[in-house]
Amino acid sequence: MAKTYIFGHKNPDTDAISSAIIMADFEQQTGNTDATPYRLGEVGPETQYALNHFNVDTPELLSDDLNNQNVILVDHNEFQQSADTIDKSSIQHVVDHHRISNFETAGPLYYRAEPVGCTATILYKMYKERGFEIKPEIAGLMISAIISDSLLFKSPTCTQEDIDAAEALKSIADVDLESYGLEMLKAGASTTDKTASELLNMDAKSFNMGDYITRIGQVNTVDIDEVFQRQEELEKAMLEVSTNEKYDLFVLLVTDIINSDSKILVVGAEKDKVGNAFNVKLDNNTAFLPGVVSRKKQVVPQITEALS
Amino acid sequence: MAKTYIFGHKNPDTDAISSAIIMADFEQQTGNTDATPYRLGEVGPETQYALNHFNVDTPELLSDDLNNQNVILVDHNEFQQSADTIDKSSIQHVVDHHRISNFETAGPLYYRAEPVGCTATILYKMYKERGFEIKPEIAGLMISAIISDSLLFKSPTCTQEDIDAAEALKSIADVDLESYGLEMLKAGASTTDKTASELLNMDAKSFNMGDYITRIGQVNTVDIDEVFQRQEELEKAMLEVSTNEKYDLFVLLVTDIINSDSKILVVGAEKDKVGNAFNVKLDNNTAFLPGVVSRKKQVVPQITEALS
Repeated sequence: MAKTYIFGHKNPDTDAISSAIIMADFEQQTGNTDATPYRLGEVGPETQYALNHFNVDTPELLSDDLNNQNVILVDHNEFQQSADTIDKSSIQHVVDHHRISNFETAGPLYYRAEPVGCTATILYKMYKERGFEIKPEIAGLMISAIISDSLLFKSPTCTQEDIDAAEALKSIADVDLESYGLEMLKAGASTTDKTASELLNMDAKSFNMGDYITRIGQVNTVDIDEVFQRQEELEKAMLEVSTNEKYDLFVLLVTDIINSDSKILVVGAEKDKVGNAFNVKLDNNTAFLPGVVSRKKQVVPQITEALS
Repeated sequence: MAKTYIFGHKNPDTDAISSAIIMADFEQQTGNTDATPYRLGEVGPETQYALNHFNVDTPELLSDDLNNQNVILVDHNEFQQSADTIDKSSIQHVVDHHRISNFETAGPLYYRAEPVGCTATILYKMYKERGFEIKPEIAGLMISAIISDSLLFKSPTCTQEDIDAAEALKSIADVDLESYGLEMLKAGASTTDKTASELLNMDAKSFNMGDYITRIGQVNTVDIDEVFQRQEELEKAMLEVSTNEKYDLFVLLVTDIINSDSKILVVGAEKDKVGNAFNVKLDNNTAFLPGVVSRKKQVVPQITEALS
């Protein structure tokens, strides 16, 4: 049987890594024994905490050329967020919870998207529909992904289905959602041990918005000020990478996971339009955005609109 | 509640019309009481036969501007096959069995694609998953769509799931699949009462293939020769519409629904490449293609490849 490559987006977060592992397990249960999870980047400390807790191996970094290879995408579809050779591959299946853009296939495929908070929630439903067994470590990764994407159910992207899935899974995984979730989020929220470049890349995605390419990175923290003490260093790194990668805009979203607020840092010629997106005037390239925690729901549409 | 517009592709076939009606019934059962089926073109005689048989009203022709309206697409996703204002709409849900191309949304949505022979088969599964009631006329439309898309289960696009769905539905709809199916297909296979323009538009779709726009029409018949007696008239009409609509190629696939073969008629500067696609040399702009009945599986990929 030909191998099936399964992976989430570049700069993988806990949902991207977990969903690749979960989907590979799902495919194994359908009889696709050569389904293999991969990752498109380094595993962050939050994800590593989850993998360690449930004693799951880290997927291998994808290095193969995907030309004519069978591929399953999880937690993304936009080609600029995917493997570099994705356009040469044969995409068999997509499971995702994002908008669809810059995605096309030559032939028919399985595509399952739902506007829920987390890809793992959709995978949970797929297991239930097929009556597949959910092993404790798979339940644990599903919970980890849901808590990560929903910031412990506080993000506006979180739906009742995400909460119901986590509640149904907690006894299988043998965890308390609040205490496990907070420990996991805290494990990923340390910023002082990271370089500016690491912070920018922790969870960053590129978006085509009208005529512009916008890079939006997100850093979770328990202390926003700690991050902004390094503002000058961060701005320089953002300008450097924007020049090299031809980003028109770079937005860094620094999110307080305890109080559910964010402060943004913006560089690029059109930076004032980012202020307009939130009806504020940038102060020294920054703005405090109370209640904003979701890039997908509270940042990407607003900036897309402001740039159009 | 805001209205939800539900429709299949332009030049609607039986799956496009039936799936819009079925999906509206499905949405009604979820509580979306303002879900309304529409059509993007005239209903053909095959579809009309099915609607009459099961005593179902023909959906209204879509004429509203979809700007900011809620929309559900069935049996298609490519914007050039959809409503003219589709790019201004808010697409909530897609149920389809085709490749994905020239499709994008601003926000997350439901998307359900499976590589089966017919959209109605996917809808059948969605009813079963939710435990929804399938009324006799809905079962009848599902069967009609499956038989139409699969040419009575003979097309290579037909899967076991399509057959299983039709078998499971026949007692609810109270029909014999073979005899009902053949009568329905024959109702759509009369060509002598149609103008050349009507034949070209009966079931035609446009495809972006590399740098070319290819128009591929399909005519079902019980007598291929009857159609080709009008070759000159058809060629003139194909050239005329290609000039007006800027098609680079126009391929007419005339399919014998009894013997499961096709003969193609081709116009356009790159017509010889269509011959190459099937390893034949066109003879007077035509070629006989034994065993070819599926545009999606046996024609579109082959011509796409030959033009790339």
